[in-house]
Amino acid sequence: MTFKKGMIYGLGLGPGDPGLMSFKAHCILRDTTHIAFFRKKGRKGHARLIAEGLLSETVSEFAMEYPVTTEIPVNNPQYNEILSGFYADCTKRIKSISNKGLSVSVLCEGDPFFYGSFMHIYSRVKDTHPVTVVPGITGMSSAWTETGFPITWGDDMLSVVTGTLSEESLIEKMRVSDAIVVMKVGQHLAKVRRALKATGHYEKAWLVQYAAMKQCNVQKLCEVKKDKTPYFSIILVHGEGRRP
Amino acid sequence: MTFKKGMIYGLGLGPGDPGLMSFKAHCILRDTTHIAFFRKKGRKGHARLIAEGLLSETVSEFAMEYPVTTEIPVNNPQYNEILSGFYADCTKRIKSISNKGLSVSVLCEGDPFFYGSFMHIYSRVKDTHPVTVVPGITGMSSAWTETGFPITWGDDMLSVVTGTLSEESLIEKMRVSDAIVVMKVGQHLAKVRRALKATGHYEKAWLVQYAAMKQCNVQKLCEVKKDKTPYFSIILVHGEGRRP
Repeated sequence: MTFKKGMIYGLGLGPGDPGLMSFKAHCILRDTTHIAFFRKKGRKGHARLIAEGLLSETVSEFAMEYPVTTEIPVNNPQYNEILSGFYADCTKRIKSISNKGLSVSVLCEGDPFFYGSFMHIYSRVKDTHPVTVVPGITGMSSAWTETGFPITWGDDMLSVVTGTLSEESLIEKMRVSDAIVVMKVGQHLAKVRRALKATGHYEKAWLVQYAAMKQCNVQKLCEVKKDKTPYFSIILVHGEGRRP
Repeated sequence: MTFKKGMIYGLGLGPGDPGLMSFKAHCILRDTTHIAFFRKKGRKGHARLIAEGLLSETVSEFAMEYPVTTEIPVNNPQYNEILSGFYADCTKRIKSISNKGLSVSVLCEGDPFFYGSFMHIYSRVKDTHPVTVVPGITGMSSAWTETGFPITWGDDMLSVVTGTLSEESLIEKMRVSDAIVVMKVGQHLAKVRRALKATGHYEKAWLVQYAAMKQCNVQKLCEVKKDKTPYFSIILVHGEGRRP
């Protein structure tokens, strides 16, 4: 008799509002007996918060707490080493659930395959265990919807960049773009601001904090005085392409 | 007594699989008495197909049939004139439903604010009528999920471009990109292929036809012999950024 491994779900829960979760993710979540989710130490976890109210009372929870977030720069070899060990440990535990024939849902905010931590689990399980990835509405979709302006028209080119890039690199990429989304802004706001100014996009830029969450806040970037913004912040420049 | 206008919904239905519709869109759709949707003449309409099975039997339908699609080049002034009149007519009818105090759902495949025809209705109603836009899972999210590889890691820059751009313009934008999504490929496949080759991305490119639909087909682009592909085709190049 061959024993069947349980399914590992990479479950895109969307940007924050549980109503923006897909019907499919909703159904899997309601039936799931085991969940795993990433969070910063001392926090509830964003993905876990989205799932609140949809889980069974007896669900078994595995909180995967990042050993570091911004304490060590990402280009420090130590960062890679610590994170690599962390993902290996998380994967071991998730595989052990699957090995018992039980399915487990890894909760992901936004879309699992778009800058998500789940990808580091995925690459470690996909060749040995059954995996199903359910796409989700991205935080950026929610952010541009909150601004009340479409992001791309006609032939507009959209660039998605991260605030973690160097200023030179941001400028090079912004220069050829019609519409821009900057992810992972956090502590990089001043640098992103300079790159937007250097490429003529600054006056049109918006800052969206906590898109699709209760605390959602939408402002023109040039009216924002501070040079810090929460991790869940996205900067947008809307395209202005062809519109009959 | 002031009369209340009905809500105009721009309803993102996601990429094709009704299970990937958001819970919110699902609820609005089930209760809706009036729908409007775009389609090519002689077709059922993609957004309308996604909604099939979720609509009330008595729903009132308004099919908005494009007067032209690819018969006239988009840079021909006549194209703009014909489309502009078409969108004005559609808007007039949608406003007339709202003016009666009835709400109306404009069905949108993918996300309404991401290259969607709904945007041309939206810009014509937003200052005079109540509008609610519900974001959706994009076709590109679904496409990269179908390939089984994440699209962006770490600091990867993602460019979304349209196949309608000139070859020079495609090359300029692809050159600075880590990950690439090409939308609106259709009859532009040969040109997109050349631009990918010129920028060193060709060997890594995938062609996804009909993502999240029954006919879904995923191939390495270099194994595709034909130089034509259906309208619902997306070309992807996955990023290879930082992965601990």
